[in-house]
Amino acid sequence: MSVRDAKVQKVEALKNQDAEWTKLVLSTYTDPLGKTRTWEHAERTTRPQDSEIDGVGIIALLERDGGSDIILQKQYRPPIDKVIIEFPAGLIDAGETAEEAAVRELKEETGYVGVASQTSTIMFNDPGFCNTNLKIVHVTVDMANPENHDLKTNLEENEFIEVFTVPLKNLWAECTKLEKEGYAIDTRVGALAEGIQLAKQLKL
Amino acid sequence: MSVRDAKVQKVEALKNQDAEWTKLVLSTYTDPLGKTRTWEHAERTTRPQDSEIDGVGIIALLERDGGSDIILQKQYRPPIDKVIIEFPAGLIDAGETAEEAAVRELKEETGYVGVASQTSTIMFNDPGFCNTNLKIVHVTVDMANPENHDLKTNLEENEFIEVFTVPLKNLWAECTKLEKEGYAIDTRVGALAEGIQLAKQLKL
Repeated sequence: MSVRDAKVQKVEALKNQDAEWTKLVLSTYTDPLGKTRTWEHAERTTRPQDSEIDGVGIIALLERDGGSDIILQKQYRPPIDKVIIEFPAGLIDAGETAEEAAVRELKEETGYVGVASQTSTIMFNDPGFCNTNLKIVHVTVDMANPENHDLKTNLEENEFIEVFTVPLKNLWAECTKLEKEGYAIDTRVGALAEGIQLAKQLKL
Repeated sequence: MSVRDAKVQKVEALKNQDAEWTKLVLSTYTDPLGKTRTWEHAERTTRPQDSEIDGVGIIALLERDGGSDIILQKQYRPPIDKVIIEFPAGLIDAGETAEEAAVRELKEETGYVGVASQTSTIMFNDPGFCNTNLKIVHVTVDMANPENHDLKTNLEENEFIEVFTVPLKNLWAECTKLEKEGYAIDTRVGALAEGIQLAKQLKL
C-alpha cells in the first residue's frame, strides 16, 4: 500500500444543499469608493463558532547533530488528485487553542510528541477565492523522549499519510526534487522553503 | 479613499449554475487500499486549458543600500471582508508563461517594471479544500530604470490596491505588527516570513 495508489474516478457538480462541509457563496460589498459590487467565493462550514481559524499547520522540528530536521507528510488529496508534500496539519476542534490542536494533530498524524513553542499570525490560504485560514504552530520534538522512538499514529479511516523528515536547510532543494518525482508541493511548505533559501542567498 | 473603507453587506448561498468563476464539486476516488470514497471541494473555473496553474504570486525585490526591500500590497478581499497584506499576484492569461504573467501583473498592480529571475515549484493553496494553485516568480526591480521612479498602474475597475515596501529581513516582525493594526496576512507572505525568521534564528 502506498499513498500513490489513490486516484480520482469521477468529478461532478455538487449543490450547496448536498454539501456537508463546503459552501459556495455570493458576497455583496461596498467597494472603497462606495459602489456596491458582488464577489463569488467558497467557504468551509466546519469552523467552530468560537474559533477565528479553520485549522493549524505544524512546523515540527527535531534537533539532531548537525542541525534541525523538519517533519513532513506525503498525503493523497482528492481535490488535486495528487500526493502532496505538506506539514502535519488539521482542523481545529471546538474549544481548542491553536497550540493544543497542533500538539494533538502532530501526535495523531505522525506519532511524534512535541511542545508548542511559537505561533504565527493568522494566514489566509487564497483570499480572493475562499475564506479558509490557519495559524502555523512551531512544535519542538525532543528525541530524548522514548515515545518519539516508538511512534504510534491515530489516523482517521480515510487518512493515508507517509511521514518523513528533511534537513530544514535543504528544504528548497528537496521540494524541487520531490516535484520532479511527481509529488505536489503545498504552499506553506513551498513558501517556507523560499524564505529559507532567500535568507541564505542574501545573507539576511 | 482607503482600501479599509470597503465592507461586506450581505452573504448568500450561490448555486453552481449561477456562478461565473467558482464551482463546488464532488470527486469520487479510490483510496490507497482500493476502497471507493467521495470528497467535496471547490474549484476556480478560470484556469486556461493550456495552463497547469491558476496564477502567480510575485516576490519583487528592490535593491537598496543596506539590503533588499520586498514590494507588498494592501488589498480589500471580499471573501474574508478584510484588507490583507499580499504579494503582487494575479491570474494567468491563456498562452502566457508564469514569468510573463508575473512581469505583467507587477506592472499593472504596482507600476514597477522588473525582470523575472527565478520560478518556484507549483504550490497548492489549500489542497484538502480546493485545487487552486500558483507559482511564485521572483522579479528583480532595477531602481536605475527611470520608469521605476514614475509609477503608473493599470488596475481593473474593481481593484483597489495600496503598494508599500518592507525590508525583507524585517518581514516577520512587520507581519506581526500589521496584524496588530487590523490587517490580515496572506499565507504566502506569512510562510515566507517564517522561513526567513527560522533561517536567521537557526543560522541555516
